[in-house]
Amino acid sequence: MALSGKALVAQGGGPTAVINQTMVGIVLEARKFPEISKIYGALHGVEGILNEDFLDLTQETSHNLEQVALTPASALLSTRVKPDEEYCRKIFKVLQAHDIRYFFYIGGNDSSDTVRIVSEEAKKANYEMRAMHVPKTIDNDLVHNDHTPGYGSAARFIVQAFTGINLDVRSLNGVYLGIVMGRHSGFLTAASSIAKKYPEDGPHLIYLPERPFVMETFLHDVKAVNDKYGFCIAAVSEGIQDVNGTPMIANLMKNVECDPHGNISMSGTGALGDLLADTIKEKLKIKRVRSDTFGYLQRSFLGCVSDVDQAEAREVGERAVQLAVWNDEDGSVTIQRTGYYSVDYKLMPLAEIAGRTQSVPDEFINAAGNNVTDAFKFYVRPLLGSGLQPIARLRAPRVPKTGKKE
Amino acid sequence: MALSGKALVAQGGGPTAVINQTMVGIVLEARKFPEISKIYGALHGVEGILNEDFLDLTQETSHNLEQVALTPASALLSTRVKPDEEYCRKIFKVLQAHDIRYFFYIGGNDSSDTVRIVSEEAKKANYEMRAMHVPKTIDNDLVHNDHTPGYGSAARFIVQAFTGINLDVRSLNGVYLGIVMGRHSGFLTAASSIAKKYPEDGPHLIYLPERPFVMETFLHDVKAVNDKYGFCIAAVSEGIQDVNGTPMIANLMKNVECDPHGNISMSGTGALGDLLADTIKEKLKIKRVRSDTFGYLQRSFLGCVSDVDQAEAREVGERAVQLAVWNDEDGSVTIQRTGYYSVDYKLMPLAEIAGRTQSVPDEFINAAGNNVTDAFKFYVRPLLGSGLQPIARLRAPRVPKTGKKE
Repeated sequence: MALSGKALVAQGGGPTAVINQTMVGIVLEARKFPEISKIYGALHGVEGILNEDFLDLTQETSHNLEQVALTPASALLSTRVKPDEEYCRKIFKVLQAHDIRYFFYIGGNDSSDTVRIVSEEAKKANYEMRAMHVPKTIDNDLVHNDHTPGYGSAARFIVQAFTGINLDVRSLNGVYLGIVMGRHSGFLTAASSIAKKYPEDGPHLIYLPERPFVMETFLHDVKAVNDKYGFCIAAVSEGIQDVNGTPMIANLMKNVECDPHGNISMSGTGALGDLLADTIKEKLKIKRVRSDTFGYLQRSFLGCVSDVDQAEAREVGERAVQLAVWNDEDGSVTIQRTGYYSVDYKLMPLAEIAGRTQSVPDEFINAAGNNVTDAFKFYVRPLLGSGLQPIARLRAPRVPKTGKKE
Repeated sequence: MALSGKALVAQGGGPTAVINQTMVGIVLEARKFPEISKIYGALHGVEGILNEDFLDLTQETSHNLEQVALTPASALLSTRVKPDEEYCRKIFKVLQAHDIRYFFYIGGNDSSDTVRIVSEEAKKANYEMRAMHVPKTIDNDLVHNDHTPGYGSAARFIVQAFTGINLDVRSLNGVYLGIVMGRHSGFLTAASSIAKKYPEDGPHLIYLPERPFVMETFLHDVKAVNDKYGFCIAAVSEGIQDVNGTPMIANLMKNVECDPHGNISMSGTGALGDLLADTIKEKLKIKRVRSDTFGYLQRSFLGCVSDVDQAEAREVGERAVQLAVWNDEDGSVTIQRTGYYSVDYKLMPLAEIAGRTQSVPDEFINAAGNNVTDAFKFYVRPLLGSGLQPIARLRAPRVPKTGKKE
């Protein structure tokens, strides 16, 4: 028999284009079950739980929820707080005080660890409750998931960006570096490969945190491409590391800024792109070298959404509620690929997800470590969704020269 | 009686999302006139004319032309060469050698000056020819134009970017600076104002090159907003200047890079954003400060297009051909606003456009010089086109606290 009581949903970590789909999926599905008396939303993630900052989402219109679902970033606001055991115990006490029997936390692997500890506290206290982690991260780095909600839309942004960059750089030549988010895993940077349509299109070079970044090799690669085509486009992960595993950006920042998870702040600065561009100018004597750091646009840009990502983000939320009500176990909802292209959802133990990071697998990276393989392109294409605008070039024949210009 | 002969079209300067609409408008319209025997396209702008690098666009399918029209950036490729008088004389010689009687150059005010000199050379040589400048620039800085093709789509990108940024920053707090293109004129930066929906939404501060940038005032403004809302979002033009008229970015760059027009290269580096962010961190002791430099994405991002801009870009091309064939004068096609919202096109003398720059007028800037007025928002809104995705917030009531968390 299903537990009776209230439900609570919260969002953690960096926003995505579809995280609100998941939240709304949870809310609308929860409202269908008579066992769930109310569905609360915590503001600012775990901080809001500790402070009892709850909205009563039972009192939202379905229309407004659907509008919120289409809105990027966390409608319940977010937090970078990483709770320790003591913090999680306090979370549990608040849940208990409100007779919350269903706890849904939407986030990455740090969030799943929070859910794990809360779940254990509930068991210790003999308090019957379902604690569910619901996946979300543009980094696509959760283990046991084929991919994560949020990744497809962010990847689509990267494809739309590099498609335009290809056309732009080709029209004026030069070297262009696009710096893409992804602290430890290069999935987002790798998505840039889909922008390549014509043989001389970029990105010609793709650098991921999964392979050591060596400046001399990088310069050699850029020179080779630029000599061949007269221009060169590279996609570079913000998380690239030197041979010692030190992030390149850590060598650049005067004051390294860390979040409460101990991660160096990488976005919100153009330092890495500027360093690489300056080095190319200086060492290769190439005049027109530009770098863009895509920054926060890639995770919250309005109207850049994969319909596949949108649907799956909604479904993980719905399934989280269904599994919580109908099964007697806590866990993390994961996305499993079952065909090309179809998915299904599977509940995995929280301890299996928490604190682990999925990197881009070897078969997706080329031997030289400066591009991706076709296997990766095959993997990523369905996640970008439908309706990507096609581009076209002129194919008209050349006019014979008169040679009479003087 | 209309001139008989060939037509030539070329594209100059920075790409836009709709410059190919204009080129295709010219080509399709030119193919309707029996007087025009062929329509050529010069590759890489004036460089391609001097080198006789022409495509015979008479031999393009209409389908492919329509696909190219939807593709951002210059399909005929572009150039940063600014021709002097001698260069223009050579251009004229090539046109004459190919029996070109209609010359269409799509570009900004530098391009209009090229057209002006070519027009004068033709008159001197008693060579009957129509030389037409067709407007294009995301900077929106051509005089005698209500606005320019390319601006509306780039402005839409800025609105979509800041709408997402509003949601993103609100969820995690902090100070955010978005650095927007616009060397001398702040129209593009000003467009960010449309992203503000809810009262506490950003951008709270908007800095344009039209007003001197004073660091102390900037810090004071940021602190006031951040104290009020707990976060602060500012849109800053890359072209902001100090009280002496020196671009802020010129004070930052180790090696200032200039294009052949004598303009300092401002895009393709995050230096300005990083300096402002570092100063805020240091002086205001605010921890989470981020800056993004939007860079090349804002002029060539795939699929971010204003339908109004698209239609007008097509029309200026069509009208350029019609005016060239049916009138006996050279000139620049300009956009005139005739209602809210309707436009018409008017031919202006080339000398009236060439070498002049339109700034954001005073009535569009607030008294403090750190934001825009409603008059600007009224002006810009129709240019963004239809179908901007609405965003929504949760409106559910707060849940009473139990106070029983310990």
